[in-house]
Amino acid sequence: MQAKFSTIHNLNQNWIGMNPENRLKCFNSLGRILAEDLFLSLPTVYQAELITHMSLVERRAWLRMLPLDDVADVIQCLPEAQRDLSLNLLDDETKQEVQGLLAYAEDQAGGLMTPQIIRLHPDMEVEIAIQYLRTYAKHHHEKAYYTYVVDQDQRLLGVVSFRDLLMAETNKKVADIMQKDFISIPDKLDREDVARVFSSHRVSSIPVIDDHGRLKGVVTYDDIAHVIQEEATEDIQKIGGMEALGLPYWKTGFTAMIKKRAGWLTMLFLGEMLTATAMTHYDEDIERAVVLALFIPLIISSGGNSGSQASTLVIRAMALGEVKLTQWWKVLIREIGSGIALGAILGTVAFIRILLWPNKETIYGPHYWLVAFTVAFSLGGVVLWGATAGSMLPFILRKLGFDPASASAPFVATLVDVTGLIIYFTVATLILGGTLL
Amino acid sequence: MQAKFSTIHNLNQNWIGMNPENRLKCFNSLGRILAEDLFLSLPTVYQAELITHMSLVERRAWLRMLPLDDVADVIQCLPEAQRDLSLNLLDDETKQEVQGLLAYAEDQAGGLMTPQIIRLHPDMEVEIAIQYLRTYAKHHHEKAYYTYVVDQDQRLLGVVSFRDLLMAETNKKVADIMQKDFISIPDKLDREDVARVFSSHRVSSIPVIDDHGRLKGVVTYDDIAHVIQEEATEDIQKIGGMEALGLPYWKTGFTAMIKKRAGWLTMLFLGEMLTATAMTHYDEDIERAVVLALFIPLIISSGGNSGSQASTLVIRAMALGEVKLTQWWKVLIREIGSGIALGAILGTVAFIRILLWPNKETIYGPHYWLVAFTVAFSLGGVVLWGATAGSMLPFILRKLGFDPASASAPFVATLVDVTGLIIYFTVATLILGGTLL
Repeated sequence: MQAKFSTIHNLNQNWIGMNPENRLKCFNSLGRILAEDLFLSLPTVYQAELITHMSLVERRAWLRMLPLDDVADVIQCLPEAQRDLSLNLLDDETKQEVQGLLAYAEDQAGGLMTPQIIRLHPDMEVEIAIQYLRTYAKHHHEKAYYTYVVDQDQRLLGVVSFRDLLMAETNKKVADIMQKDFISIPDKLDREDVARVFSSHRVSSIPVIDDHGRLKGVVTYDDIAHVIQEEATEDIQKIGGMEALGLPYWKTGFTAMIKKRAGWLTMLFLGEMLTATAMTHYDEDIERAVVLALFIPLIISSGGNSGSQASTLVIRAMALGEVKLTQWWKVLIREIGSGIALGAILGTVAFIRILLWPNKETIYGPHYWLVAFTVAFSLGGVVLWGATAGSMLPFILRKLGFDPASASAPFVATLVDVTGLIIYFTVATLILGGTLL
Repeated sequence: MQAKFSTIHNLNQNWIGMNPENRLKCFNSLGRILAEDLFLSLPTVYQAELITHMSLVERRAWLRMLPLDDVADVIQCLPEAQRDLSLNLLDDETKQEVQGLLAYAEDQAGGLMTPQIIRLHPDMEVEIAIQYLRTYAKHHHEKAYYTYVVDQDQRLLGVVSFRDLLMAETNKKVADIMQKDFISIPDKLDREDVARVFSSHRVSSIPVIDDHGRLKGVVTYDDIAHVIQEEATEDIQKIGGMEALGLPYWKTGFTAMIKKRAGWLTMLFLGEMLTATAMTHYDEDIERAVVLALFIPLIISSGGNSGSQASTLVIRAMALGEVKLTQWWKVLIREIGSGIALGAILGTVAFIRILLWPNKETIYGPHYWLVAFTVAFSLGGVVLWGATAGSMLPFILRKLGFDPASASAPFVATLVDVTGLIIYFTVATLILGGTLL
């Protein structure tokens, strides 16, 4: 039995690495039971891929195997032309429920939930409720461990776990044993917030409620575990300086991949062109003291690195709800402190490095002391500026309604590069004016 | 009742933002029921913080409220001196179990699991099993929905959900209704792999087994939802170019924060110093054609951006198990393709930009055509190199036994900066030799 599971596990793990043709061949070569287990364990995109290669009769059978919320997800993943075709395979009642789910955005609680839940009435006796369950829950797809107690208007009154029912004295009423202090979430709640409610409250499922307090469905842990992963993937890809792929690496086509990357890369490039413009203002300085050019990459990239650390920290702290928009000034104070400390460290390292270099006089000229001071102070300033700008950028983006994760390492680096040059050449003019400049 | 939950929810959300003193004051001002609910909902570090401020009598009472795996986590979070003190508060049996848990590393399945599980024998009748549950499970902390069937040697034979028991005919035996095809994980499994098993198999709990096949405990979804978040946080912080904090933003002290950041920042800085060394080789070129200096920041940062995209993509795909170590060559081929496409796009943009600039002749000199070609070809080469190096670095790090997430955007940028300069000045010599150089 373990053998069967390890087969499924291996297939599941290797599925992404195979090409579509091999996936189809492999799937068709499996026995019915293994194929079913594999199908149920696959991510939605792969379920949809397999479905598109099936005859309509097969397709109906395989769709029926899925819980309703997964059916909706699979249909959403199909090519536009195939969606209605597949919807029409479902019986009327199921179709209606799936259409209800499709009406919600995929990233809302309503889009994540299953509408198939067991509803009890408060004045049911426990024994009757158990009998009702025994007949009803057998035809029930989801791994449900809770029942929901509603009034005539479908308003949620309480929650009863299968376990509570099992433990209760059979002559009690459902209302006596239901938990009345439950958490519920609105159907329009963003899935990132849903994930946060799950990880802070440690519950296995949360009922979803519409604007009128009516019970619409339930979101379960297994719908959300993969949302947490997906949200983190999106943020990581944005932090890397690109659009989120939205699909696994191998599943993303070459042109789609280029599109997701070229947009940001070009925008960053256009921003970075400002450095060339800034440099034209300093070309006379460079002509007089070419030694200054040597440290340009060092200084601007140190600012970028410092900014990248600060922005990444703030982006993640925001995503986890640790840092709020209103706390920008607390972060600012802290990052100014960090920037000064880190700038002092790097400045000192650079100062020592220049003074200890064996042939410093031939490379940096007779004024190497002054050059060392220029580089050290510039670094201090640039690192401080990087930490400040990097930490504030996510706040500004969020305030303007953008995703703070767009404050990627490359974005911050680009922002800091131009100002880094200005800081460097200003410091140089102050320290080297009259000697080298 | 909803009011109570929203109080807890708000407190929970704001807890991180408060300073330790206010947290303690706030906690002490709560009524017993609210305080208990809040305590149970807090992350381990905050539970430990509150525990350290309690008298031993109080401490015993609050620790008893927690499931055993959480007790172990809290004790692990306490200052060294307080650990044994707190362990000794527990009754002998509990103490032994907690010590067993403490023996596992925190990042192993054994460190995540609870040892308190309901064990059934295969020849128990369903009715007896239900009676056993009714007496036993009441004293049971975890939100368990499964029971585990073991033989005399504690080897796991099958799994029975509460729901299966509820639905079963009462004269059947446990062996008849148990699911024999279950997933289990070894007790030494790394928590990142545990998280992956959870998200690919959509189960609510997984039994943990030692080398001899004996059942040791169970890891439940709520232990893992926060692991998924934590693993993502670690990776994101590493990608940002620093050590993972390991604590929430506000919980990390100023000096700890500086330490986590200064290490990488200094290492990157030392690496970036190679740019200054490289530049000394080209200072005569710059002296002859200062116009070359103008494009240095633009070219090296474009390479860094391209590298940052590629490394981030690969890091995340590896963490999700989409890309395997052996697939490096498939990634290489793909990233060479992406690099050529992206390099061509940026090179074209740069070429057009230089030719369209109004006063190009005064800024770039009479050979602006050649300058445009130099910049365009260098960009193409640097972007291609960035994509290649950025995508391969995570593979190299992992092969060497390091965390691939250390291939941070700043690390890749630093690596690409030096080679970027070499590419740029080599292209310049080839194209501008005889005219500007």
